[in-house]
Amino acid sequence: MIDLRSDTVTKPDDAMRDAAREADVGDDVYGEDPTVNELEERAADLVGKEAALYVPTGTMGNQIAVREHTERGQEVLADRESHVVKWELGGMAQHAAVQVRMVDGERGVPSADQVEAGYVAEDLHRPETGLLCLENTHNARGGLAIEPARIAEAASAARERDVAVHLDGARVFNAATALDVDVTDVTRHVDSVMFCLSKGLGAPVGSMLAGDADFVERARRTRKLFGGGMRQAGIIADPGLQALENVDDLEADHENARLLASGLDDVAGLSAPEPETNIVVVDVAGTGLDVESVLERLREHDVLATAFGPTTIRCCTHRDVSREDVERAVEQVAGALV
Amino acid sequence: MIDLRSDTVTKPDDAMRDAAREADVGDDVYGEDPTVNELEERAADLVGKEAALYVPTGTMGNQIAVREHTERGQEVLADRESHVVKWELGGMAQHAAVQVRMVDGERGVPSADQVEAGYVAEDLHRPETGLLCLENTHNARGGLAIEPARIAEAASAARERDVAVHLDGARVFNAATALDVDVTDVTRHVDSVMFCLSKGLGAPVGSMLAGDADFVERARRTRKLFGGGMRQAGIIADPGLQALENVDDLEADHENARLLASGLDDVAGLSAPEPETNIVVVDVAGTGLDVESVLERLREHDVLATAFGPTTIRCCTHRDVSREDVERAVEQVAGALV
Amino acid sequence: MIDLRSDTVTKPDDAMRDAAREADVGDDVYGEDPTVNELEERAADLVGKEAALYVPTGTMGNQIAVREHTERGQEVLADRESHVVKWELGGMAQHAAVQVRMVDGERGVPSADQVEAGYVAEDLHRPETGLLCLENTHNARGGLAIEPARIAEAASAARERDVAVHLDGARVFNAATALDVDVTDVTRHVDSVMFCLSKGLGAPVGSMLAGDADFVERARRTRKLFGGGMRQAGIIADPGLQALENVDDLEADHENARLLASGLDDVAGLSAPEPETNIVVVDVAGTGLDVESVLERLREHDVLATAFGPTTIRCCTHRDVSREDVERAVEQVAGALV
Amino acid sequence: MIDLRSDTVTKPDDAMRDAAREADVGDDVYGEDPTVNELEERAADLVGKEAALYVPTGTMGNQIAVREHTERGQEVLADRESHVVKWELGGMAQHAAVQVRMVDGERGVPSADQVEAGYVAEDLHRPETGLLCLENTHNARGGLAIEPARIAEAASAARERDVAVHLDGARVFNAATALDVDVTDVTRHVDSVMFCLSKGLGAPVGSMLAGDADFVERARRTRKLFGGGMRQAGIIADPGLQALENVDDLEADHENARLLASGLDDVAGLSAPEPETNIVVVDVAGTGLDVESVLERLREHDVLATAFGPTTIRCCTHRDVSREDVERAVEQVAGALV
Repeated sequence: MIDLRSDTVTKPDDAMRDAAREADVGDDVYGEDPTVNELEERAADLVGKEAALYVPTGTMGNQIAVREHTERGQEVLADRESHVVKWELGGMAQHAAVQVRMVDGERGVPSADQVEAGYVAEDLHRPETGLLCLENTHNARGGLAIEPARIAEAASAARERDVAVHLDGARVFNAATALDVDVTDVTRHVDSVMFCLSKGLGAPVGSMLAGDADFVERARRTRKLFGGGMRQAGIIADPGLQALENVDDLEADHENARLLASGLDDVAGLSAPEPETNIVVVDVAGTGLDVESVLERLREHDVLATAFGPTTIRCCTHRDVSREDVERAVEQVAGALV
Repeated sequence: MIDLRSDTVTKPDDAMRDAAREADVGDDVYGEDPTVNELEERAADLVGKEAALYVPTGTMGNQIAVREHTERGQEVLADRESHVVKWELGGMAQHAAVQVRMVDGERGVPSADQVEAGYVAEDLHRPETGLLCLENTHNARGGLAIEPARIAEAASAARERDVAVHLDGARVFNAATALDVDVTDVTRHVDSVMFCLSKGLGAPVGSMLAGDADFVERARRTRKLFGGGMRQAGIIADPGLQALENVDDLEADHENARLLASGLDDVAGLSAPEPETNIVVVDVAGTGLDVESVLERLREHDVLATAFGPTTIRCCTHRDVSREDVERAVEQVAGALV
Repeated sequence: MIDLRSDTVTKPDDAMRDAAREADVGDDVYGEDPTVNELEERAADLVGKEAALYVPTGTMGNQIAVREHTERGQEVLADRESHVVKWELGGMAQHAAVQVRMVDGERGVPSADQVEAGYVAEDLHRPETGLLCLENTHNARGGLAIEPARIAEAASAARERDVAVHLDGARVFNAATALDVDVTDVTRHVDSVMFCLSKGLGAPVGSMLAGDADFVERARRTRKLFGGGMRQAGIIADPGLQALENVDDLEADHENARLLASGLDDVAGLSAPEPETNIVVVDVAGTGLDVESVLERLREHDVLATAFGPTTIRCCTHRDVSREDVERAVEQVAGALV
Repeated sequence: MIDLRSDTVTKPDDAMRDAAREADVGDDVYGEDPTVNELEERAADLVGKEAALYVPTGTMGNQIAVREHTERGQEVLADRESHVVKWELGGMAQHAAVQVRMVDGERGVPSADQVEAGYVAEDLHRPETGLLCLENTHNARGGLAIEPARIAEAASAARERDVAVHLDGARVFNAATALDVDVTDVTRHVDSVMFCLSKGLGAPVGSMLAGDADFVERARRTRKLFGGGMRQAGIIADPGLQALENVDDLEADHENARLLASGLDDVAGLSAPEPETNIVVVDVAGTGLDVESVLERLREHDVLATAFGPTTIRCCTHRDVSREDVERAVEQVAGALV
């Protein structure tokens, strides 16, 4: 099986497993897990923030951030297709009691004009704007690597109005890699950022939520409320530290993604534009088959992918998929759709 | 002063005041206020539903409806400019813990395609669609009288997917009047409808929430939770019964609105398209003044209106504004903007 | 029928009806209803607070107060039998996301020691105390008129710890009357107080929430969220102003309550201790009948009362029950239980 | 340092570390982690339920359970001192919008009479009872091992009224060990049970939530909402499987606890009744020192404990504390308090 469903399927490698085996641990609820502490410091440094918090998932990181940045009854500006809007079970309403004002941003990012148009000041009747949420890479728009200037534009428009900015950077290292910039060129424009150690970096479990010290201190308490205050978490934080060593490998995933797209685009009935990062979106309309049938045929030919849009599927490359796997995947797909 | 800010400013007339004076009352929390009971029956009949509930405001009616139709964590499909989204303090998130999926509907109504595109079935990660909210007349789109066919199209698309439909019909009698249809031609397509006795019908206080008997029974309990279970409410319900006699007068408000629009459109710098109901939207860009300055000048000339959009103001006609008032208002505005 | 179920059943008298008929009104959402404004000023003065807000019900007043005084996740200290805990549909959890720490207070009021024991400071794991709720008269403890010293003791213990204090004073004028003190002797110890114009004072609809100016300003916005922002509310606020003239009549209700208790206590099988205010609690265990059967028999003999505890019923006196009614009620009850 | 603060400080042993190193993993959000699946099956079997769910913490397990068993606005009956009430940041109000009705149960368990007294049926005004929460062992009552009969009594009283029962069994294997019963003798009386793999069993991370299949399926979705849907969780689930092998070791912790209590009770100024499980509560009033001073002195003598009550401290034994450690701890404490 060549599993292209998501980069979440990456399995820990030997270095990570060794790290788990040997991790120096303590009770992290007491702040005494040295590995978690080291990871939190490293993560904060990496993205240029004062502090960071280890959370079991990116969803928890995003939801804690939304809650800490807002007061109930406020509005959050976000792209309609962003993960926090679409894939987190309406958590913003459930956990933070905020309303999302959906924007159809170009490349998934609201423009300064859209931020201005969507902004609401305090009012007797209206929910005021409390937060702008951005996402980079932008998953549901096709793994787009959002340029720092675009992030900066949206963020400035928000911050001028005293609106905080959170970045869902689950794959922000993919973005920095694709754009060939330092990740801080992206993260410096936002108040807080979440990024995943799992996904492309390969850790088995965990994400980081970074921001200023006061924000992270409050987030730590809210993590407890969410049931995310784990004990000897060093055992998974140490593989997370290993995962941070894998940032340079993401370029290979992107290269594989381009190879995959190019190969699939040559298959009759398929159309696959060049990907920006590790997410390949393939239009299958030309096959005359519906998405589910295409996925089923691929599965029968040992290739796993996921539905994306009404006529598109998504293939992700990641560290558990080699160049050879990609080449074989193209052949298999071609065979599957004959 | 000619007060064109809103039809909410209508004051009770003598008939209503007499009704308040003479109302037969009881304790409505015990279900013993005969006037409230009569009003609830009359209201249910009028809009063709099994039952209705008297609530102090349209906001409470809408919010109770959203809560009763949904489960926490679901999504509500609604036009971006609808009152329940824009003007109710994010109540859907706060009271019902639901996320709104904003749609930019034509004439403020999602098309069947938009309902289909916005619909989400139950999923491990996604908030599923629980409700479609419509609005008629559509206030923030300019008092549009939405045609029954359009309501039917959106509602059918929802109901086919087992998604309930609520109509914010704060001014649904204006819509029916403008379209020259029976109000049930509009309301028959939806599961629940809220309409206001205040606003154009002139009652001092109160709105009705109508739907099937089971829905209204649950809504009655939730009204208590919201603090809307009043005692001898007959004293305001009886003016509400009077207000139902005023439906036929709405046509005069619409005529006055057309007269007002026509007059203002002739004023240099103003542009006012023909209104569909009692809400006149006036573009003031041609005056070279910003909206606040225009409103201030009007105020100095005894005309009150409200800001609407970046270059537009809103003028509402209502039963406390006569044809003569409208004629004078046009003159005053012309004088104010010389 | 002699209706002793509750003082909520009081019907507006002619003075109130005339007031409704003649009320000077405006749009209260715009702050332009002169009668509401007058009522809010009068109410604030009466209880010695900076400002007050007119709300449709006592439940809304209490729930807004809890929400404004707390942050989500805090604890509210309250007597187990208090109205806000027992009879408001869990609103504190639903509207304010706070946890109630129930205390079994003597006479329904936590002692200073109980406040101290129940108080929780900020902690990584624990919900901190955000509010103390008191009630006077204490309904479910039997209409107890709580002495200012007792209120002061509990309130001081809270305020020393920076915990706000709200008083559910639905019947606080009954308390002041029974204790022969000025109502401000009670209210001066608390940050906010809600009192009802309906109930013993006889208004058809409405309650007041009073506190400092900033609190009331925030409460005004939250009232909108709850759907309590009515329009020409003067039509019910003017009867509310009339109701404030009725404070001196409460003594008669208390006298009638004592007469009723004394009379019922003489009926075989009944035991009714002397009431402190207008609420008479009658133990019916000696009749050998269960509560529902007793209530049914009374109903057949034209007397209405309500269930109170496992073997007790509650009879309320109020301005629509005369001394003669009370005398007849005693006779009827005696006849019913022969 | 001899760390007696909590059994949460237990560090993974070599067997667990090896298990982490060698774990067979997959993406658990897709249900494809074989180790998690095995752990969930094992856990369900152990406590005699249809299914189980792996969650990162006991708090998340409890909070998901409360949410799944209730509807917003209901009441949860629970002992005043229970963990879910006291130590989970008011999560029941925040996540589930339910009100807790606190009971002072004997040995921390409501009696059948208390359940009956606290039970509220559906009512127009009252929050109805939706859940009874029990805890075993009962932490804040001193690690009490609650007898199955007592659990059965409370649970039956609830279930007769169609009220679900959840057991916070964070240390339920300690209870079963102390009582010398099978854990299912306890868990068979409840609808759902949470137990911790960390704490006395020694796993670094994780707890299990078990119940019937439908409940666990819904809980799985809610885990996602809470941000608890981890990916290659097998890496911590495999140490969790190892932890299940440690149940038989708990008896040694209990023996150590008795030894510790006996030794400390002999220290001048200390009083330590015989513990039922691994939690030793020591009254330090006789030392003339306050709790913080005692803890500070102990710390200076290499013994860590925690504050428990106004004059009491808590010492926990666990698998990282040997008999020799306990003996040394007694000596150190004696030396610290000379």
